[in-house]
Amino acid sequence: MLSIIANHRSIRRYKSDNVDDKLLNELIEAGIRASNTGNMQTYSVVATRDARLKKALMPAHFNQPMIEQAPVVLTFCVDFNRFDKWCKARNAVAGCYNFQSFISAAVDAVLMAQNLCVEAESRGLGICYLGTTTYNADKIIDVLSLPRGVMPVTTVTLGYPDEEPALTDRLPVAAVLHNDVYKDYSPADIDALYAEKESLPENKKFVEVNNKETLAQVFTDIRYTKENNEHFSVVFLETLKKQGFID
Amino acid sequence: MLSIIANHRSIRRYKSDNVDDKLLNELIEAGIRASNTGNMQTYSVVATRDARLKKALMPAHFNQPMIEQAPVVLTFCVDFNRFDKWCKARNAVAGCYNFQSFISAAVDAVLMAQNLCVEAESRGLGICYLGTTTYNADKIIDVLSLPRGVMPVTTVTLGYPDEEPALTDRLPVAAVLHNDVYKDYSPADIDALYAEKESLPENKKFVEVNNKETLAQVFTDIRYTKENNEHFSVVFLETLKKQGFID
Repeated sequence: MLSIIANHRSIRRYKSDNVDDKLLNELIEAGIRASNTGNMQTYSVVATRDARLKKALMPAHFNQPMIEQAPVVLTFCVDFNRFDKWCKARNAVAGCYNFQSFISAAVDAVLMAQNLCVEAESRGLGICYLGTTTYNADKIIDVLSLPRGVMPVTTVTLGYPDEEPALTDRLPVAAVLHNDVYKDYSPADIDALYAEKESLPENKKFVEVNNKETLAQVFTDIRYTKENNEHFSVVFLETLKKQGFID
Repeated sequence: MLSIIANHRSIRRYKSDNVDDKLLNELIEAGIRASNTGNMQTYSVVATRDARLKKALMPAHFNQPMIEQAPVVLTFCVDFNRFDKWCKARNAVAGCYNFQSFISAAVDAVLMAQNLCVEAESRGLGICYLGTTTYNADKIIDVLSLPRGVMPVTTVTLGYPDEEPALTDRLPVAAVLHNDVYKDYSPADIDALYAEKESLPENKKFVEVNNKETLAQVFTDIRYTKENNEHFSVVFLETLKKQGFID
């Protein structure tokens, strides 16, 4: 396996060293080499370094400290604003204000993000993805002045690592790979596939410090509750509407 | 730039050589090293090699020949079925049947896909993404027997390349990168940013063979029409409902 891929860790503490414009441009160059739908490139990246703006982004990311601490915050967005302006200037009528356009471009924006992250790690940089982007897209839109047609889908903090975290566990390949068609899981399959994960000391500790019976309960009762998921579903769908992607 | 990233081309013709189970497993290992939300790994990959099943997938991908021709078709899915079964077996109630869970896991599934593709290319394999996945998710669900909680988000054909296509163009970095906040585009910006793309002989030819005035019109009038985008938006949203992710 490529050592960059094998050794990927999310980095949440960064040195104060900046990521200069030349390097950032090279990372974007790498990002945009990824496949994208029809080569329309209906995405944008906002690279935020200004301390005041990073502070303003903090609440959108539940005040995770790496937003302020990282030298650069990259917000990856679906962007049909630019495409639409190009079409208008070229006697063409873009039919992009709909959900299908959003979801296709969201896939493209994420492919670009991951290409950029692999390249960044190959240059000695560290990255951390922030899933909070789809929770608080509305707040991010305000801080970054994203117009209609632009929707944030993921965020990456970027900088030189100032920590060396351990590799995190993964389920065995058999848990995620299906041959030919989907093979549903029996109770015995579930036990076998999650056994190693549940036996790891760090995950046992995770259950203990959260005062829960099982690792699954840490996810369902504390980290990703039904109530929060449902609340942020409403917010995201309303934001998609505001940005023009659903009626 | 990493040569794998710099030299990426979509490969649409493959040699007959198979991709064996050992190699495929190693590719999945690389894929799942990508970051994912809470390390819940709420995704699955269906690797289809069976000729009859690949044929059945053809209409979902508008009969693009690489589906039948590639030795392996990988369908990357959001998968809360496995997670939900794990939770149920562990006295936990998963609150994952909502849009927020879908979109978070869709990001994770795509990060995994791109990690896998970078690794695949480093092993001499070629890949092609199929955006048709979000057009005809309903048909793919039927062919691959995807249960409730599982939703396809992208597809990759995989095999040893039997063609050497030219590198495709990209917009300049300035088109997609914004400093600190989103900077909207003036008509002069649009002209400058799209000038090189529009001047390329292959794109001029693309306009000519499609009998259009501008490159933008090829996208809006032929390749990604408003009518199609709106039709497939309805299909995708209905399919999300069927799979449990919207009310």
